[in-house]
Amino acid sequence: MNELKNLVRDVPDFPKKGIIFKDITTLLQNPKGLRTAVEIISDHYKDKKVDIVVGTEARGFILAPTVAFNLGAGFTPVRKPGKLPYEKISMSYTLEYGTDALEIHKDGISKGQHVLMVDDLLATGGTMSACCKMVESLGGIIVGCAFLIELTFLNGKKNLSPYNIFSVIKY
Amino acid sequence: MNELKNLVRDVPDFPKKGIIFKDITTLLQNPKGLRTAVEIISDHYKDKKVDIVVGTEARGFILAPTVAFNLGAGFTPVRKPGKLPYEKISMSYTLEYGTDALEIHKDGISKGQHVLMVDDLLATGGTMSACCKMVESLGGIIVGCAFLIELTFLNGKKNLSPYNIFSVIKY
Repeated sequence: MNELKNLVRDVPDFPKKGIIFKDITTLLQNPKGLRTAVEIISDHYKDKKVDIVVGTEARGFILAPTVAFNLGAGFTPVRKPGKLPYEKISMSYTLEYGTDALEIHKDGISKGQHVLMVDDLLATGGTMSACCKMVESLGGIIVGCAFLIELTFLNGKKNLSPYNIFSVIKY
Repeated sequence: MNELKNLVRDVPDFPKKGIIFKDITTLLQNPKGLRTAVEIISDHYKDKKVDIVVGTEARGFILAPTVAFNLGAGFTPVRKPGKLPYEKISMSYTLEYGTDALEIHKDGISKGQHVLMVDDLLATGGTMSACCKMVESLGGIIVGCAFLIELTFLNGKKNLSPYNIFSVIKY
């Protein structure tokens, strides 16, 4: 894991002063970094009979379909309001300031499907929690929530306590 | 190709009346559809020694990293303004109404790298053309621009005439 950790770049004062941003673009542009990250997540869930991997716009779109491809599963996107063209459900969730909403196609998940949720970063877990609720309301069975990076000091696992959580890199 | 075409859903009157939207989510959520689409693009460029695959926020993030993974290459994102944390260049481009801008990290591409551009849809080619110019200004050698879907009646190839264009599905 240390090898992957070394590929993540610290960018100080982004998006605002005092925050050290964990930049994963340096990991993704490294062929071995991308391959290893995707394989570690896939290996962790390879016995769970994953049918669908769900990823959330925009950065969740990077790893989720790649893990889906590697597991032989399909990919279903969660998007910002107004982006999905077909019949959908939506879910509001609370941000640091105000609220936001996300949407998923009603037929993006079928009842009883094994669903793996994949995102780049586990911070407070608020977005992922909303996504999980949508998937479950469509009848999906969540086999796990996988993240490339977990900021453990934000205790996002607490918001996702019903689920199996897996993070490749922890800070 | 017809098998993949059958997995694309026509959604009438989206995003506005009179337009028939080509919805690829039905293809992506089908494991065989996702696998076949990624393999067709990868196979087409497998002898081009691709170092980096570039994809553009948000829907370009779905296939580009997956093709990169399958080719053993890295992935570099092009993002909307203000999203990338490190030193970057930006490029404005013209939309139907007004202009927009995109950004890429300065070290996202190294001089002489073989770069494959991947996006879901070739419409007018304006966005892809701007992305190609950024990649070239960083010294990247574009080996091709690959799309899942091409709307041939919009003649986007004209805007991308210097490049090798490949589309999995044509309308």
